[in-house]
Amino acid sequence: MSAIDRGSAASDEAFMREAIELAERGLGLVEPNPMVGCVIVSPRGEVVGRGWHGRFGGPHAEVEALQQAGEQARGSTLYVTLEPCSHFGKTPPCADAVIAAGVARVVAAMTDPFPKVQGGGFAKLRSAGIAVESGVCEAEARALCAPYLKLVTRGMPWVIAKWAMTLDGKIATRSGYSQWISCSQSRELVHGIRGRVDGIMVGRRTVELDDPLLTARPPGKRTPARIVLDSQARLQNSTQLVRTARQSPVLVVTGPEADDKEIRRLSMAGCEVLPFLAATHFERLLELLSELGRRQMTNILVEGGAKLLGSLLDARLVDEVHVFIAPKLFGGERAPGPVAGAGVEQVASALELRNLKIDQIGTDLYVSGRLHK
Amino acid sequence: MSAIDRGSAASDEAFMREAIELAERGLGLVEPNPMVGCVIVSPRGEVVGRGWHGRFGGPHAEVEALQQAGEQARGSTLYVTLEPCSHFGKTPPCADAVIAAGVARVVAAMTDPFPKVQGGGFAKLRSAGIAVESGVCEAEARALCAPYLKLVTRGMPWVIAKWAMTLDGKIATRSGYSQWISCSQSRELVHGIRGRVDGIMVGRRTVELDDPLLTARPPGKRTPARIVLDSQARLQNSTQLVRTARQSPVLVVTGPEADDKEIRRLSMAGCEVLPFLAATHFERLLELLSELGRRQMTNILVEGGAKLLGSLLDARLVDEVHVFIAPKLFGGERAPGPVAGAGVEQVASALELRNLKIDQIGTDLYVSGRLHK
Repeated sequence: MSAIDRGSAASDEAFMREAIELAERGLGLVEPNPMVGCVIVSPRGEVVGRGWHGRFGGPHAEVEALQQAGEQARGSTLYVTLEPCSHFGKTPPCADAVIAAGVARVVAAMTDPFPKVQGGGFAKLRSAGIAVESGVCEAEARALCAPYLKLVTRGMPWVIAKWAMTLDGKIATRSGYSQWISCSQSRELVHGIRGRVDGIMVGRRTVELDDPLLTARPPGKRTPARIVLDSQARLQNSTQLVRTARQSPVLVVTGPEADDKEIRRLSMAGCEVLPFLAATHFERLLELLSELGRRQMTNILVEGGAKLLGSLLDARLVDEVHVFIAPKLFGGERAPGPVAGAGVEQVASALELRNLKIDQIGTDLYVSGRLHK
Repeated sequence: MSAIDRGSAASDEAFMREAIELAERGLGLVEPNPMVGCVIVSPRGEVVGRGWHGRFGGPHAEVEALQQAGEQARGSTLYVTLEPCSHFGKTPPCADAVIAAGVARVVAAMTDPFPKVQGGGFAKLRSAGIAVESGVCEAEARALCAPYLKLVTRGMPWVIAKWAMTLDGKIATRSGYSQWISCSQSRELVHGIRGRVDGIMVGRRTVELDDPLLTARPPGKRTPARIVLDSQARLQNSTQLVRTARQSPVLVVTGPEADDKEIRRLSMAGCEVLPFLAATHFERLLELLSELGRRQMTNILVEGGAKLLGSLLDARLVDEVHVFIAPKLFGGERAPGPVAGAGVEQVASALELRNLKIDQIGTDLYVSGRLHK
């Protein structure tokens, strides 16, 4: 194969970046499938097909792009953010479609760790005589589908922690008031995040203090389960959560100390109760995340309070952080900060954020990033 | 006077903004004098002179600008950010110089509240037949010289609170470690602020924990006094502060509970001790700020800890806030936040920041603003 057929490394990267941008359009719609984007480029270097996985159960990115390219796919290079699948899932194998279309070369960003694929897609393409390269823009592609990768490889959802605090690091006044620290635009943005995740998690104390609904308003692309960590099963029937449990699912996670009567009460009120028996918070959090993973939940948003966030961070179970900082000060030795728990002892042991994004949202500062582990 | 002589409101504002920008060059050099800038514009609309107050005791902005304009000052409009002085201070009255130069019109941003001026400058100009207008860009000019205005009208220095915290609002780990939360570029910037203020204030506990030098490194435009709030006069002779007290002033502020022997010990070690007898923290803080005002200190930087910042904020004695936020998390229920004290009870009572500035400094986020009262 000539150097021209291969494409230059720079143009390979440029096409792959376009494929990654296309993939992002599936956010909140494709999970638990991965977001995937695809660009097909003719031997003359023209883009003849673009596609992305648009919704769970719908056609894959490659099939969409091949359809657009039609006959022009013959002899082309196909750029895709993830190894084409080789198995019959919700749709037929993409590798077969790629071969049938006469594609000459496939450039992928990464291997799919999904057990039924895992290199099988590449093998199928190669045995059909297609040139295959993998690893172009791999870091970006891995960042894009990190929640999918975690679900597939570790069986747990991606955990997003969110809090709103003042510029002096308080999530409530000394008397426990917190409505509202962030501005309306920030709260709107949070509703947007709620509408693309599979679950929203809080501790029982947060329900007692704020009596939140924890729904996405307006409704988003999916309806998140509302998950309350409530070791003793003391969540009241009068709360908004329990009262709306039959309209929108509520999961109550209890510990061994929960009374059977209380568990029955919550079940009868329409909540689903997950009675974990492990003794420690840490073990129960692990059990819970594994159970949510078995349910194919890809992203979970944790909205506090400080105790739950502290437990999750102590256990290194948070993947991504979204912080809204309001330009005001509460002061107060007793006013709570966002993260309790044990915390780190040394400055050097701090959890560090990567891929930092900083925005101004209304009057607030919005900082998000991923935790480096 | 014709409309052309008067200038349009828009051009008046544009020239005044230039004068304000010139004034800012005096920051850290002119205090306790105000920063002042001046622009002289010929009848044809050309800038013929620019000046600013460059250092304490040096020529005033008007004199600098008039010197540059020379004969062209005749019939001109003089823009100045503060009422020209009418008294003999370190230099002769600027109003006299303006009159002598044959200026036709003076546009000022604001009256000087300094008791020896206070409208006297304007009166002198008007009685010499010069057209005088005041109030152009007044809000900006007041913001520019807010510390001067506070010193003149309330007899107290401008109080700048500074802290570095993690994205979860901690100023130290659970074990009290804090070196270093912020990145080296942020710390460099703090040294820059130190070098332009008259005093740097901390609580004794901060000295115990961090043993700081509290000097500007490299040295700045002025040498700040290092001020330690130490009710019981327990500051140790072995601290860096006390050991360097003869090279760079250290003020120790004690309360009625301080032992005379300890006060003598600190005095003999080279510290200046201010033994206030008021019973409450609040009264002692007021006495201290009044004393610093009598010493003509214009800006004081408070570098913590949480207790001192809490007391100052509870007493509404902070004017400006500079916060460095490092993109990391410490966690920890016991890890301290930046501001203790009583704090506010209601969300609506929060102290709000205005004139917010947001920058990225190295890896940190740098947020500063002024407290609205």
